[in-house]
Amino acid sequence: MLQSQDETALREFCTALHPARTAEFMEGLTATETWQVIQHAEPEIREEIFLFVEHDKQVRIIETQHRQPVAALIALLPPDDRVDLLHDVEPEVVEALLPLLPVDERRDVLRLLEHPEGTAGAVMTTEFAKLSDSLTVVEAFDELREQAAEMETIYYIYVVDETEHLRGVVSARQLVSAMGQPDRRLGELMETDIAAVLVEEHQEDVALKVAKFDLLAIPVVDAQRKMLGIITHDDVIDVLREEATEDAHRIAAVDPLDESYLKIDLFTLGWKRGMWLTILFIFAFITAIALRHYEAGFGMASWLMLFIPLVISSGGNTGSQSATLVITALATKDVTLNDWARIVKRELVVGLMLGVFLALIGIGPAYMLTDGQWNSILVVCSTLILVVVCGTMLGSALPLLFSRLGLDPALMSSPFVAGIIDILGIVIYMNVAFSLLT
Amino acid sequence: MLQSQDETALREFCTALHPARTAEFMEGLTATETWQVIQHAEPEIREEIFLFVEHDKQVRIIETQHRQPVAALIALLPPDDRVDLLHDVEPEVVEALLPLLPVDERRDVLRLLEHPEGTAGAVMTTEFAKLSDSLTVVEAFDELREQAAEMETIYYIYVVDETEHLRGVVSARQLVSAMGQPDRRLGELMETDIAAVLVEEHQEDVALKVAKFDLLAIPVVDAQRKMLGIITHDDVIDVLREEATEDAHRIAAVDPLDESYLKIDLFTLGWKRGMWLTILFIFAFITAIALRHYEAGFGMASWLMLFIPLVISSGGNTGSQSATLVITALATKDVTLNDWARIVKRELVVGLMLGVFLALIGIGPAYMLTDGQWNSILVVCSTLILVVVCGTMLGSALPLLFSRLGLDPALMSSPFVAGIIDILGIVIYMNVAFSLLT
Repeated sequence: MLQSQDETALREFCTALHPARTAEFMEGLTATETWQVIQHAEPEIREEIFLFVEHDKQVRIIETQHRQPVAALIALLPPDDRVDLLHDVEPEVVEALLPLLPVDERRDVLRLLEHPEGTAGAVMTTEFAKLSDSLTVVEAFDELREQAAEMETIYYIYVVDETEHLRGVVSARQLVSAMGQPDRRLGELMETDIAAVLVEEHQEDVALKVAKFDLLAIPVVDAQRKMLGIITHDDVIDVLREEATEDAHRIAAVDPLDESYLKIDLFTLGWKRGMWLTILFIFAFITAIALRHYEAGFGMASWLMLFIPLVISSGGNTGSQSATLVITALATKDVTLNDWARIVKRELVVGLMLGVFLALIGIGPAYMLTDGQWNSILVVCSTLILVVVCGTMLGSALPLLFSRLGLDPALMSSPFVAGIIDILGIVIYMNVAFSLLT
Repeated sequence: MLQSQDETALREFCTALHPARTAEFMEGLTATETWQVIQHAEPEIREEIFLFVEHDKQVRIIETQHRQPVAALIALLPPDDRVDLLHDVEPEVVEALLPLLPVDERRDVLRLLEHPEGTAGAVMTTEFAKLSDSLTVVEAFDELREQAAEMETIYYIYVVDETEHLRGVVSARQLVSAMGQPDRRLGELMETDIAAVLVEEHQEDVALKVAKFDLLAIPVVDAQRKMLGIITHDDVIDVLREEATEDAHRIAAVDPLDESYLKIDLFTLGWKRGMWLTILFIFAFITAIALRHYEAGFGMASWLMLFIPLVISSGGNTGSQSATLVITALATKDVTLNDWARIVKRELVVGLMLGVFLALIGIGPAYMLTDGQWNSILVVCSTLILVVVCGTMLGSALPLLFSRLGLDPALMSSPFVAGIIDILGIVIYMNVAFSLLT
């Protein structure tokens, strides 16, 4: 269609489908081609399609296309998406675009760009339905009709006093229900016990609060409870998915990626993995030193060497299970730091159960690989119990400790556990062997 | 307050705060005490507080308290939460409660209980704003006012034809904006290209669709596009969090827990971990057999044994990084199965980079632990490169393979990778040693 300049078909293409699907169909196009296609849509539809274009392509369009139409598009974007996008655009381009924006939008961008990434301020949108508490129901509807055209959503209508301080909230549903009493004031109708977040709060805490109270949006206020913006459910979903992925990466010893897997450049990917592998390598090196320390001991029985992988992997696996369970339970607030004693107790019991269980399974292999030496069975089984209990203890304690220190509990816990357990495993194994074999 | 039977204070306690906070304050109370406290609230407030009580306590209340008032409460619950709850209540109790429910609610419960857990049908609510396409804007408002009192939300108003088939959607915002044209029909106002899900679709796919289109709710239809219910954003957030936690658990070789960490009984927890540990144990046993196979080889040089943990942990760690990256990218739809060739190519390049990098770091330890034998350095470094590349290849290929076979890509990938790499690592190590040392 682009090649044949078929304008009617292009216009049809832009309007017939949901903007998300139109954007999906254009995934194969370059930034310039995408931009050319959406020129055939009305400005509002163009903006909606643009919102669903992949982030990188959006940035490229803004950086490469004619400033004037790009600025016109940017002016239409929802404030939160706009500032997210401009965070990733070359600073010179942003500077060139700012003077082309209408004065309100310009001020808005500058204000939102101030908030550090990851805070409520950086995620919020400044477009929300806002009414004075002195309005009546019928006046509220009139006012709302005017605001509605510009708003993303009106499911919550925030009620503020003359100085823009948050007083309460009325839902669209309540307002419609109250149409029978046109003279009631919003001040009487509104709910006053409302959850709000401070502008500098971390986005993960905001998301958990919204999820906990089952809200569609949460107001963002400053320390004086002046209303600055709202954070909507779709941003919350994005934040929760982002944080879950980051946790999973940290658990696997990958520094969280800033971009999607296929887009991140390979050197960055290598670096984000290599730095943690280096730390784990140091643990493995210490394990090797420990082995050399006990080298003479291996002379006691040649079969001792065979069980090295079994001993360290049993400890590492149970430890990483415990670490992951505690990290995910902390992230979903199923447990808090105050539960530490209960957690450690549970892990002790489960560790003993698992240790005894693995020791029982271990009898067979120990018998087979050592040609039936009874003392080998004793060494392998006692080592397994001790190592597995150490794994669950360490695996549960480390995330709690990191969390207590104000660090991310997912921070290197699993790899750390595995690394420390490798060393501990060798020390336990050889000491058990010494005491039982000599 | 309960002990002194202070009714005024209890009533005050139930109404002064947001229901979520009231429920939070009662966390220390037993089921019976909680039930006694909320008897002092109006039925609607009681229902709201009850919704925020912990799931297990809700179940216990339903199972242990007087049938009649419990049934009255259940009748008021939103249909989706109600059926979620009844899924976990003893079947005899459900059977005893059903005849006490009003006929509409009873029919609703029976219909929703039919849908298997994990499908759209089991998560949906059957309460949604639904209007005929022939209504005008002003008629729509009248009708909506009547429906609004019973609805959870009215942010989307679904437009259906006479036979309840989904025709389109109008947002509350659009309806308010159109108040100036009271005679326009909903059929002209509505958007017709709307995303919907089938009643039997998996909840994870539903959640991803809602997140993708940034929706507040998505309609659930049958194969004939007859409208059955909606799934709201709060359920989507719950589903996404649940699935992310399940993936994290699977990655760490824990069978996903059905209950929260502190509540699951210890034998179940032990079993969910022990079954995977057993599989991993078998891998470790095979590693031991491999070691015995090469036992004579270790006689070539005594330092060979020292690097066993280093070799297998380097392979296991890079493999688990790759597996986690691919699993999370598949879960967030950053990559699809069609990208498999690109993924494997990227992992090959990164694997080579990381392998060479670790080999370079490995020179030092190899030199130190073997008292400067140059051939030891060669053996350790070449083994590291080969093992790390194997790790990234296997780590990326296994989740793709599981996904291709229609299984969950997170299914045992990480532990599997680690287990296989342990065995492969020993084989590679000893073969490299044989060819370079003899």
